[in-house]
Amino acid sequence: MNKADGYTSGVVLNNMAAFFPVNKFSTNGRGPSDYDNQATMIPDHTDDMGGKSHQLEEDFAVVEPKDDESCAVERLHHLTKIVTEFQDHLRERATNHLGYPGNHNCSHYLALSTLLQFNINNAGDPFKKSDHGLHSKKFEVGVLDWFARLWGIDKDEYWGYITNGGTESNFHGILLGREVLPNGILYTSEESHYSLFKIAKMYRMDSETIATLATGEMDCNDLRDKLLMNKDRPAIINVTIGTTFKGALDDLDLVVHTLTHCGFSDNQFYIHCDAAISGFVVPFLKQVPKFTFKKPIGSVSISGHKFLGCPMPCGVLITRRIYINLISRNIEYIASFDTTIAGSRNGHSPIFMWYVLNLKGRKGLEQDVQRCLRNAQYLRHRLKKAGISSMLNEMSITVVFERPPDDEFVRHWQLQCLRNMAHVVVMPHVTVELLERFLYDLTRKRNTWYGKVQPPCLAEDIGICNCVCPVHAYPTCKGGAKPRRALAADRTWLQLEAIMPIKPKVQTYFVY
Amino acid sequence: MNKADGYTSGVVLNNMAAFFPVNKFSTNGRGPSDYDNQATMIPDHTDDMGGKSHQLEEDFAVVEPKDDESCAVERLHHLTKIVTEFQDHLRERATNHLGYPGNHNCSHYLALSTLLQFNINNAGDPFKKSDHGLHSKKFEVGVLDWFARLWGIDKDEYWGYITNGGTESNFHGILLGREVLPNGILYTSEESHYSLFKIAKMYRMDSETIATLATGEMDCNDLRDKLLMNKDRPAIINVTIGTTFKGALDDLDLVVHTLTHCGFSDNQFYIHCDAAISGFVVPFLKQVPKFTFKKPIGSVSISGHKFLGCPMPCGVLITRRIYINLISRNIEYIASFDTTIAGSRNGHSPIFMWYVLNLKGRKGLEQDVQRCLRNAQYLRHRLKKAGISSMLNEMSITVVFERPPDDEFVRHWQLQCLRNMAHVVVMPHVTVELLERFLYDLTRKRNTWYGKVQPPCLAEDIGICNCVCPVHAYPTCKGGAKPRRALAADRTWLQLEAIMPIKPKVQTYFVY
Repeated sequence: MNKADGYTSGVVLNNMAAFFPVNKFSTNGRGPSDYDNQATMIPDHTDDMGGKSHQLEEDFAVVEPKDDESCAVERLHHLTKIVTEFQDHLRERATNHLGYPGNHNCSHYLALSTLLQFNINNAGDPFKKSDHGLHSKKFEVGVLDWFARLWGIDKDEYWGYITNGGTESNFHGILLGREVLPNGILYTSEESHYSLFKIAKMYRMDSETIATLATGEMDCNDLRDKLLMNKDRPAIINVTIGTTFKGALDDLDLVVHTLTHCGFSDNQFYIHCDAAISGFVVPFLKQVPKFTFKKPIGSVSISGHKFLGCPMPCGVLITRRIYINLISRNIEYIASFDTTIAGSRNGHSPIFMWYVLNLKGRKGLEQDVQRCLRNAQYLRHRLKKAGISSMLNEMSITVVFERPPDDEFVRHWQLQCLRNMAHVVVMPHVTVELLERFLYDLTRKRNTWYGKVQPPCLAEDIGICNCVCPVHAYPTCKGGAKPRRALAADRTWLQLEAIMPIKPKVQTYFVY
Repeated sequence: MNKADGYTSGVVLNNMAAFFPVNKFSTNGRGPSDYDNQATMIPDHTDDMGGKSHQLEEDFAVVEPKDDESCAVERLHHLTKIVTEFQDHLRERATNHLGYPGNHNCSHYLALSTLLQFNINNAGDPFKKSDHGLHSKKFEVGVLDWFARLWGIDKDEYWGYITNGGTESNFHGILLGREVLPNGILYTSEESHYSLFKIAKMYRMDSETIATLATGEMDCNDLRDKLLMNKDRPAIINVTIGTTFKGALDDLDLVVHTLTHCGFSDNQFYIHCDAAISGFVVPFLKQVPKFTFKKPIGSVSISGHKFLGCPMPCGVLITRRIYINLISRNIEYIASFDTTIAGSRNGHSPIFMWYVLNLKGRKGLEQDVQRCLRNAQYLRHRLKKAGISSMLNEMSITVVFERPPDDEFVRHWQLQCLRNMAHVVVMPHVTVELLERFLYDLTRKRNTWYGKVQPPCLAEDIGICNCVCPVHAYPTCKGGAKPRRALAADRTWLQLEAIMPIKPKVQTYFVY
């Protein structure tokens, strides 16, 4: 799957290194200033697992301070200088950030900056008293109550906590499922977050990877087939609300219908909804079926650093209170219950979430969502008009398009890539002006990329209807038809990949 | 084990509530101002798992903002006011913080406060390049290199990352052990961190709980017995460098000797060292055997928010590079390897660690350690002189003493309690002046606690030699003798507790 490595050429890098000044903050040593002067394909140095690179500039080493006082002042000045330069670098990177699902409108968190002088720890259960005084559990519960209202569960019915991010939230949700149904099989789609496959392995759970439609959504026909093959064992199902790459929504109602249709009663399944990506989008749209505790789900998780833009990874996990007793254990010396995965827990992130939710409210968030949807549609429209294969799921902010065959371009715009695809996640910081700059750069560079070679075919990735490669430029299917399912061979390959790492192979797609 | 609940009396609370002004930030609603006016035992309201309390003040609720601009300004002012008041509360709590192992000398992190305007994410492997530009992996690697030097492993030999705290670090270390030795049994002492028992359950690993000496250190006789009972299966051993409650050091050399003695060859065991508590103390002491990669260990973890005082929970996990390939998986769309437990990772905490390590250096840390040791010895000396049962392990900063039978006292000084014991962890923010205030308060209140009843016996908890209860006030054993082993009955009870939550029971120890 490591197609990016197809571009790799250490020799070329060595020859070209002299042309590029070093950016000490980036992992490849090159900076944004190098970018605009070249519109050709720049090879990149990628180190594989066998060759961990330790070319660390002295600035980043931890160096013993000298003894005398004048040196101490000098040292403080030196450290401050590095951090200030680093912030300039971050500022530049934030203005060209398109591919990763993080919101970089974060300046309002500066109002909370003095909190950094406190070591705050929300150890243990957020609802339990603690003798440790430096915690922010009241803020945490305020945030949890807000999410409980959003997801339709009463205060007295839910339990939850603020996690360190999507992976911990999924760890907790699936753990609950496993404790409720110890012999359960984990079903998750091949396009769900990679943490799910890791969890199955770590928890020593049997799992089934479910195929997806070209939209990225779980294929409930395949789910049905696999449920019927395992009718004697309970089902723990991960439903993704916004897949990582295509922003697709698994159809919760159809999943529940499929379970019922296959004869699984309510106490034979547990559903965890991973809403890390689209959890803030879906609740504000009338057109989309909701994920809510009014339906037979066990837990929901969402990220706080994605759409909400908290400065550090965090997330929320909410479940039904009846389940939490299964994993709670009283830890006397922290005077709390061991109901959370992390013991010591970040006490700052609940305050960040509390602050931004109070600042924006549902109305402010809804406005963000509407603007992001409009901008995503604008980007998709412009790509289509420029003759570039692309896809935008209904009510999604993730625009998928052909993968640029230029690592510098990918890095400059910080795109995420998978097989022949790249994507832009239109987060609240992504303005029309930023999209215009991106489109200008893309269309200009594209002329140089596709001279002798042709653009890649994306039919297998995003459906024939969305592919405008030379073969599929004039699709026969009607507009609005659902993209066809991914090929069976493709599914098999993905399933394999989920189990074992695949060696990087040279990518050939730009020789079509 | 939930002895704190022995004090609980909802009725008394209701009667007394009117006397205590509400502190909206504390989980019990009472504030420090209530404290000094009373020297009697104040009952406390503790809610159990079945009665989650949602008495949330309106301040902490997330409330929808109103439409017009003037209200928006008012709202911002209101939010700022709450956060400012909260900081006053934290400041007061930090000045009376004795029992939890966190360093509250954190004001130097204010120099980094403008970093809060950036959403930084160190997703994936710290040594791999990433197309995501807003990361701090160079700082992270700088910190990891420093720890690798400290723990005696070459740059090219190690792999590691900065985690969200001790639990994640232990999760990673034990996972490595399990992947190296899939059929291995986890051995960990009954006084090791509670995350170890959670991990065994979550990972579906067989485990053996090893008894401890009264010092808190792993009893290698019991380890030997249990190893011999399971000679046909590999051993994954957690060695604790600083137990949670007594700050004891498991004897790594003796553990290795025991393994060899029992016929376990190098490829039949894996040792993880949990150095969360004393990882910064031991390397600076000449008298103590070191934990280092020169010995046959597989991984080491340490916390960054404890002795180092980072504002949010974080930790370091370092292992041998040869092991990491076992769990790595290439995740193309984050252009990195899935070698870490959390996917998205905090990008701020590596900068905090980098900053403080650079500021202090080994010399500064060594000075902190020496001061803490001196202050711990001072506290122990004063307790002994005052006729209070107490214990201080050699080269430890954790002073264990009789549990005060007064919840308000415990909460005011934020003590951690277990059975008949309480402890103070003498962290760098704990000055002699703070200890004097604490000792004055303790001795004064003690006169009111022990009128009709007598102080508890701590012989079973900390050894007869350290107990000065009426029965053991004149011990027969010679000074310097090792405290005797915990009673077998006590061990069994603790082992049971590790497996299942024990219902709170009324505590009777103050009617001796």
